[in-house]
Amino acid sequence: MDKLMENNELDILIEGGTLLTMSDALEVIDHPVIGIKNGKIEFVTGKDNDGANLYTAKKVLNASGSIIMPGLINTHTHLPMVCFRGLADDLPLMDWLNNHIFPAEARFVNRDMVYAGAMLAIAEMILSGTTTFCDAYFYESSVARAAIDSGMRAVVCQGFIDLPNPNDPVKIADIAEGFINKWQKEGPLIIPALACHSPYTCAPETLSFIKNVARKAEVLYNIHVSETKDEVVIIRKRFGKTPVKYLRDLDVLDDRTVAAHCNWLEDDEIEILRDCNVKVSHNPESSMKLAAGCAPIPIMIKKGITVGLGTDGCASNNDLDMFREMGTTARLHKVIRMDPTVMDAKMVLKMATINGARVLGLENRIGSIEPGKFADIIIVDIKKPHLTPMYNCYSQLVYSASGSDVKTSIIGGRIIMHERELLHVDLPSIMYEVKKISQTIADQYTVSGG
Amino acid sequence: MDKLMENNELDILIEGGTLLTMSDALEVIDHPVIGIKNGKIEFVTGKDNDGANLYTAKKVLNASGSIIMPGLINTHTHLPMVCFRGLADDLPLMDWLNNHIFPAEARFVNRDMVYAGAMLAIAEMILSGTTTFCDAYFYESSVARAAIDSGMRAVVCQGFIDLPNPNDPVKIADIAEGFINKWQKEGPLIIPALACHSPYTCAPETLSFIKNVARKAEVLYNIHVSETKDEVVIIRKRFGKTPVKYLRDLDVLDDRTVAAHCNWLEDDEIEILRDCNVKVSHNPESSMKLAAGCAPIPIMIKKGITVGLGTDGCASNNDLDMFREMGTTARLHKVIRMDPTVMDAKMVLKMATINGARVLGLENRIGSIEPGKFADIIIVDIKKPHLTPMYNCYSQLVYSASGSDVKTSIIGGRIIMHERELLHVDLPSIMYEVKKISQTIADQYTVSGG
Repeated sequence: MDKLMENNELDILIEGGTLLTMSDALEVIDHPVIGIKNGKIEFVTGKDNDGANLYTAKKVLNASGSIIMPGLINTHTHLPMVCFRGLADDLPLMDWLNNHIFPAEARFVNRDMVYAGAMLAIAEMILSGTTTFCDAYFYESSVARAAIDSGMRAVVCQGFIDLPNPNDPVKIADIAEGFINKWQKEGPLIIPALACHSPYTCAPETLSFIKNVARKAEVLYNIHVSETKDEVVIIRKRFGKTPVKYLRDLDVLDDRTVAAHCNWLEDDEIEILRDCNVKVSHNPESSMKLAAGCAPIPIMIKKGITVGLGTDGCASNNDLDMFREMGTTARLHKVIRMDPTVMDAKMVLKMATINGARVLGLENRIGSIEPGKFADIIIVDIKKPHLTPMYNCYSQLVYSASGSDVKTSIIGGRIIMHERELLHVDLPSIMYEVKKISQTIADQYTVSGG
Repeated sequence: MDKLMENNELDILIEGGTLLTMSDALEVIDHPVIGIKNGKIEFVTGKDNDGANLYTAKKVLNASGSIIMPGLINTHTHLPMVCFRGLADDLPLMDWLNNHIFPAEARFVNRDMVYAGAMLAIAEMILSGTTTFCDAYFYESSVARAAIDSGMRAVVCQGFIDLPNPNDPVKIADIAEGFINKWQKEGPLIIPALACHSPYTCAPETLSFIKNVARKAEVLYNIHVSETKDEVVIIRKRFGKTPVKYLRDLDVLDDRTVAAHCNWLEDDEIEILRDCNVKVSHNPESSMKLAAGCAPIPIMIKKGITVGLGTDGCASNNDLDMFREMGTTARLHKVIRMDPTVMDAKMVLKMATINGARVLGLENRIGSIEPGKFADIIIVDIKKPHLTPMYNCYSQLVYSASGSDVKTSIIGGRIIMHERELLHVDLPSIMYEVKKISQTIADQYTVSGG
């Protein structure tokens, strides 16, 4: 091999199939050739481009009969809650939260549970096409560790909540800064950030303090906003204004704030979010199951707000399959607004990819398949009866595909799942660990709360 | 082998795992033993019952790490419409119907297309856990043929529609009687029935005539009712009453009438349906995607109406996965009614099994796993990350499972899918046929309709 060829040797070459780039032009390339080197996308071209033949690669993936697309971005999760999946469903919201989830969290959440739960959740996400998630929970360092161990990209938010007792601002500022400093050095897979649980569970001082730390460190600030009608009533009662106005007046809304849910917004609150360039994470299945509400997403998008998709935690969804979340998003708003033209398939796929990247401030790094971006790529097998025939790739992916159609997953140029096998995760051990944890929860839970 | 043993030899013995019987008592049996002989369930018992050891079987299925449950029942389909899957989405309803679906049907529907489409749809259904469907379309004999060829149980409804021209009642009565006579002799897999498209596309004479034929032959009468607000307006304008009252006054409502959709009902119409013992097929995903509406299912169930689940055709869903339909059903009504306790997981699983059987008048033959019923059984692999941990089988199946978790499917005591392989269907040939048809549609459709 001569010098030129050696320099051009790629880590991975993907060829064949159909490429959805999800670039601004939404370019679709049949029979593409995609070169990957040093974790990034080196080039994207068609098979008839002579330049493509100059390259050799350590590994060649044949994607014929498949769709190649950016990995999906789950903008709102609480991964360790997989340990509570199915524990308490079909209950009134406050009963669910106060008598089941909060007590279970108080008793069973610890570092080991968080790590085991996060590993299981990451396995589920990789197997269903997600390559980046944004998580907030207790012991978030264990979530970061799980992401590293499984090769997943993650925005990890150290979470803060004042219930039952208010935190000492100096102390939480220390914790927040410590968390960011620790994980900012990790490398491109881990992006540290901060989260305040919500306007109704955090004191105004906490909301401000944490935002100031986040602002100084130039990291995301993640918060649940107006998830339920009750929350709006509570905030109005306490502070005499609606949640978005309250948060704006606290000066915590800016382009690095991610507001999850936003189910109950007045029109002028939508404009405030837009004017502050706040990003929104839409979690339809969770808000359906909890009967929390349905966010006015078509209006937000029309007004210019950037919206990504999320699954929320598994106690309220109860799965992490972003394909299902896309299908639900596309269908739900049509019937809520009685308009079959809203939330078309292309828009929904953008929400789950490039717009999700924008929500997390990572649009220059992930979210589309373009040279220079990290190679976060999934290959979806479309040689299946439920994906036949194929008139429209976007429709098929949003309305008919499911996570189990993903056959290969690449994160940062590393193949982490191939032919449905996880390559860097010991799945039987993880499932065994979570089953043990769930057995403890089930035994004690029945005795105490049941 | 002695005489006793020989007499006791079963065709199939299933052992291990967890059995959801879906019997009236909703009995759940851990480590069950299920005997199947001559297409029927011979016995159901626990592994500790000595009697279970007396049996030998030609085939033994080990279901450990799995849930064994009745096959799902899809109470409303138009199978050949898989050929239009993804052809025209995200469009206004009347544009979709009048400018895309009806013209495509007029040009491309023929016997071969119906057979090929039905075969593909059946493959998708088997792979996602459905063992019985109720279909209405043109050339319905080709759907019946496809069901027989693939080993699927089917209620096949010869469809009638007066658009664009009214039919001659004598002629359609002949067609209807001929269809029933032909297929009533077929055997237990095929149950013939009749369908009138809707109150707004059939003349009152047609609605009555076909019902009379159905009544005489003691077969089901399948009809779309109050799917859209527009339909209610049209029927009010034409006949001075709402659709259900109109149909009642025509005397077409009784316990063998299956009304699909029922999205727009006044309170007294719900009572009419209940009093006439009409069965309802609920198709939430289709009605969401078309922005047709959301049926008041929790109220119907409370008032005593038997409701089953259906997917509708693939032009409006766009898949046939009853697991996804269950998940959507459980979540949708909660947010519509702002009540997280409605449509709990058990209720939804009943709708997809035993209540679906009741809708089709087949509750003595299918819908639960009990001795004497046909052996229509699926085995769901729960050794998966998204189905871990397992606190509650019903929750897990409804909120987290998807069709691709089904690993084995048995219909009438015959194994038709095992380890995700279809045993009696040549899937590549079917997919090839449908792709050819879709190519013709795509080519001509673009030229003519754009």
